[in-house]
Amino acid sequence: MTRPALPVVQAARDAASRMADRATPFIFNAWYVAAFADEVGRHLFTRRLLDRQVLMYRTKDGRAVAFEDRCAHRSYPLSAGTLDGDTVVCGYHGFRYDAQGDLIEVPAQPRCPRGVGVRNYPVHESGPLLWIWMGDAPADLDALPDHAWLRDPAWTCSQGYIHLRGNYVSLHENLLDLTHLSYLHAKSFGTPDYAAAAFRAEIEPGRFTLLRDVVPTTLPPVWAKPTGLENYPNAARIVRSAFLSPALHTVAVRFYDNALAEGERAEFQIRTAHMPTPETHGSTHYFIVNGRDFAPEQDWITAHMHDHLFRAFQEDVDGLELLEHVLERDDPQAFEISLASDRASVEMRKYLKARAEAERAAQPAAPVAAPVSLHAARA
Amino acid sequence: MTRPALPVVQAARDAASRMADRATPFIFNAWYVAAFADEVGRHLFTRRLLDRQVLMYRTKDGRAVAFEDRCAHRSYPLSAGTLDGDTVVCGYHGFRYDAQGDLIEVPAQPRCPRGVGVRNYPVHESGPLLWIWMGDAPADLDALPDHAWLRDPAWTCSQGYIHLRGNYVSLHENLLDLTHLSYLHAKSFGTPDYAAAAFRAEIEPGRFTLLRDVVPTTLPPVWAKPTGLENYPNAARIVRSAFLSPALHTVAVRFYDNALAEGERAEFQIRTAHMPTPETHGSTHYFIVNGRDFAPEQDWITAHMHDHLFRAFQEDVDGLELLEHVLERDDPQAFEISLASDRASVEMRKYLKARAEAERAAQPAAPVAAPVSLHAARA
Amino acid sequence: MTRPALPVVQAARDAASRMADRATPFIFNAWYVAAFADEVGRHLFTRRLLDRQVLMYRTKDGRAVAFEDRCAHRSYPLSAGTLDGDTVVCGYHGFRYDAQGDLIEVPAQPRCPRGVGVRNYPVHESGPLLWIWMGDAPADLDALPDHAWLRDPAWTCSQGYIHLRGNYVSLHENLLDLTHLSYLHAKSFGTPDYAAAAFRAEIEPGRFTLLRDVVPTTLPPVWAKPTGLENYPNAARIVRSAFLSPALHTVAVRFYDNALAEGERAEFQIRTAHMPTPETHGSTHYFIVNGRDFAPEQDWITAHMHDHLFRAFQEDVDGLELLEHVLERDDPQAFEISLASDRASVEMRKYLKARAEAERAAQPAAPVAAPVSLHAARA
Repeated sequence: MTRPALPVVQAARDAASRMADRATPFIFNAWYVAAFADEVGRHLFTRRLLDRQVLMYRTKDGRAVAFEDRCAHRSYPLSAGTLDGDTVVCGYHGFRYDAQGDLIEVPAQPRCPRGVGVRNYPVHESGPLLWIWMGDAPADLDALPDHAWLRDPAWTCSQGYIHLRGNYVSLHENLLDLTHLSYLHAKSFGTPDYAAAAFRAEIEPGRFTLLRDVVPTTLPPVWAKPTGLENYPNAARIVRSAFLSPALHTVAVRFYDNALAEGERAEFQIRTAHMPTPETHGSTHYFIVNGRDFAPEQDWITAHMHDHLFRAFQEDVDGLELLEHVLERDDPQAFEISLASDRASVEMRKYLKARAEAERAAQPAAPVAAPVSLHAARA
Repeated sequence: MTRPALPVVQAARDAASRMADRATPFIFNAWYVAAFADEVGRHLFTRRLLDRQVLMYRTKDGRAVAFEDRCAHRSYPLSAGTLDGDTVVCGYHGFRYDAQGDLIEVPAQPRCPRGVGVRNYPVHESGPLLWIWMGDAPADLDALPDHAWLRDPAWTCSQGYIHLRGNYVSLHENLLDLTHLSYLHAKSFGTPDYAAAAFRAEIEPGRFTLLRDVVPTTLPPVWAKPTGLENYPNAARIVRSAFLSPALHTVAVRFYDNALAEGERAEFQIRTAHMPTPETHGSTHYFIVNGRDFAPEQDWITAHMHDHLFRAFQEDVDGLELLEHVLERDDPQAFEISLASDRASVEMRKYLKARAEAERAAQPAAPVAAPVSLHAARA
Repeated sequence: MTRPALPVVQAARDAASRMADRATPFIFNAWYVAAFADEVGRHLFTRRLLDRQVLMYRTKDGRAVAFEDRCAHRSYPLSAGTLDGDTVVCGYHGFRYDAQGDLIEVPAQPRCPRGVGVRNYPVHESGPLLWIWMGDAPADLDALPDHAWLRDPAWTCSQGYIHLRGNYVSLHENLLDLTHLSYLHAKSFGTPDYAAAAFRAEIEPGRFTLLRDVVPTTLPPVWAKPTGLENYPNAARIVRSAFLSPALHTVAVRFYDNALAEGERAEFQIRTAHMPTPETHGSTHYFIVNGRDFAPEQDWITAHMHDHLFRAFQEDVDGLELLEHVLERDDPQAFEISLASDRASVEMRKYLKARAEAERAAQPAAPVAAPVSLHAARA
């Protein structure tokens, strides 16, 4: 066709204007994975998160801390300085900050100015993850998305990181989408019956879930081998794939032998935590942890699943990077049309957009925090 | 001098403001060469044209088609998908488009939405060229610039492509300019007497021609060898160099032995079609076909002329790329002064600017096409 | 801390708004080093200065000249043309300019237009330096900062150039700052007592000086070896480090044996001229000349000091480039807090900002020079 009819294009654009995309401001008042816990230690580690440069390290007692990576004096990156005990010494003029980010020593003068420091971001360590809160609202541990299984010794996990040259909204959309499996993952994940299987979407406030029960089915090698259900047409594959927060999407799957009665059959669970943290508007830190609740001592299963999964995730990443090239070019002719099967991801993107806009609206005109008590901060 | 007098600079700027340059909007309502015909086949081929990404392929019956390279669903590049019969299947979610660009299948749901598709650009194949029409006005074959000789078996041709990191206006200006030969082509083309020879400009609506008859003259090797007029001071070199459209500039030359009477002498004709298609505002697809109307079976002549010509065209390209580095920097002090000998190119650039502005003015506020009948489009 | 109190941040921002930074317009009405004199000869040499491309060469009688590197006809870089006697011939259409920048020949037509040319920048050669004046105000030799010692045969000098991917304001700030030595130069320059030594600042109109007398002290190897005051705790080190113009900062140091009485002791002087010329807003040509007033025939001293100094200057450059990465990202949360010890550099930056603003205010709306008399210019 020359082009869809004007009302079709207009409706598509109206809908899109309510959905988050790569240009939507970030949501700061949320917990994001800043790093895997084992990345941060007794050295200065810097990473760009939500388009801000963040310095991380551990104090001598093992506590992780995070600051803006910019000296309050002349903007020098603190990560180019040194870690001295629990303090950071700027590499340019020797400004020293304590583990709260407060300036405590200025070599050029005997008295250190009071009430000066670098922004300290609350962090929360939990199992393999280091979460960070970068918003102006008070950090709220209740806002952490559920990831209790990641700290549960019953789960055997492996982890990985991919630097995605694509925006985090597209990644979330990709995760909350079962209809791409047969295409983007034609060679890895998708089995014909699974790809065609129906699914339901559950839309709850801030939580968007796809439910797909494929029974009976034949499992692809990634799951068939670990569960022993190889070349077996009567397997069950029960999938729950859920957006839990801007920083976490969890895929939970149960497998069992459908020939056995409930209660008499073994169930195998695997879960994957997909954790996108925006780096910039066009790039994303993609943290992934995959786990299972069975055969913990079988290292070959860990390796088998990790290899298969990360090959598939790489297919998503390759596709999303191709997509980003299109999106990053401003095209006045562009429009996108959504299907009924996109309902969950459309609602999720509306939710992200609404949160971003609400956060912006709540911000003071000048992007600065309310006055803080220095003495309290130093306590 | 410190600088030309203010009125001189002001006059130069006023004149320049009426002439197209790298910042001028593209002219969409025109035919451009999208590709050489032999580049497009039974595979998905993508190229950026007029700053839009275009997908091309041939249907099973050999017909070339061109679409915007962007799925109507989630903007994925269709060129990263697959060609299946005459249809294109998106690599992300399997959306299938027919050879009209209409969406005909959506795997995620049984019913395909109607009236959705990707923009289909009219193409016209003609000899070695695949022309494309990307404007909103109806494609008009009468608007094709004359290139009948390119389809005429009496002409023996060779073709080439150069990716020019420069804007297409500068290339047109370079083509409609005989005064640079002795400088930019000092080592290849220009012979002293030719460079100094007078020329006339013919200004017609949308057609700008330089006419230069150099008689007698000694031909440079590129022409002397093929015509047999080597080291011969009484040759004639009759040149017509014409801008025929934003997409075509044709140089036509006749050579003969001036010692012989008209009617009794052999005439040798060579022609070059220079076909710039903007890729972006700072880069151009430069398609070139060179041909002759004599000695068709002499392959060495084809090779001889091709090698000499493309070496010279590369000199233009090198110069234009140097020039682009200057032009792409916004310089508030800049001005350009034109000479009487620039008259044809100045008029040509005014024509391009006026067309671009007229096209813009005719556009609806939102850059969308008028509603189309889907049923008609599918017929 | 979460962040300094709002009034602290606001005060820091108010102060910063009066200080030059990488975004501040350049000061054009000043002399800058365009090149070392030995870089410019009988060839076309091009360099970007204050974000303008400048062509330089020497006429047959050895006089250096500088023009804008852009033909007045079609903006072709003149540096891609040829030097013919004292004239420059454009490589595109053969436009010929004399050593005043006046257009004197146009091959395409018998009569050359009058009153056309490229902007000619006054240059002033002085010892190893070629100074350029790029502003619209008349070039004023009285505005040259004092550098007489660079032409004085009593001084034995070596020179070097560093291309700094950082802005020139940060470099000036780095130079007018003795408090970074113990940190950025921990491994090269700074000795513990020197780093901790007090200093005074002298603020004069357009001249900002730091004075530091360290007596007694032990000299670092760079100075100890040339002066013979090695491993000697009773040396004197008398430093004057002064911003003299946007283009020159001079460090002058005297050393002597403090055990000897004034008048009976040898004094050793070294000086370094730091000469930043902005290339763009984010990069700087950093010209350096280092000299001494003793032991002129001792080549090993020249080499020894040069090697040590340039290793230290490279530390500054490395640090400033790290800093530039931070500064070039627009961060709405950013602020910088100054100390009492920053007084000289803060005043210097205010001075640069005020000069830039005054220059802008004095400019005509259109950035063109006042009309000039062509005949006078050609005289």
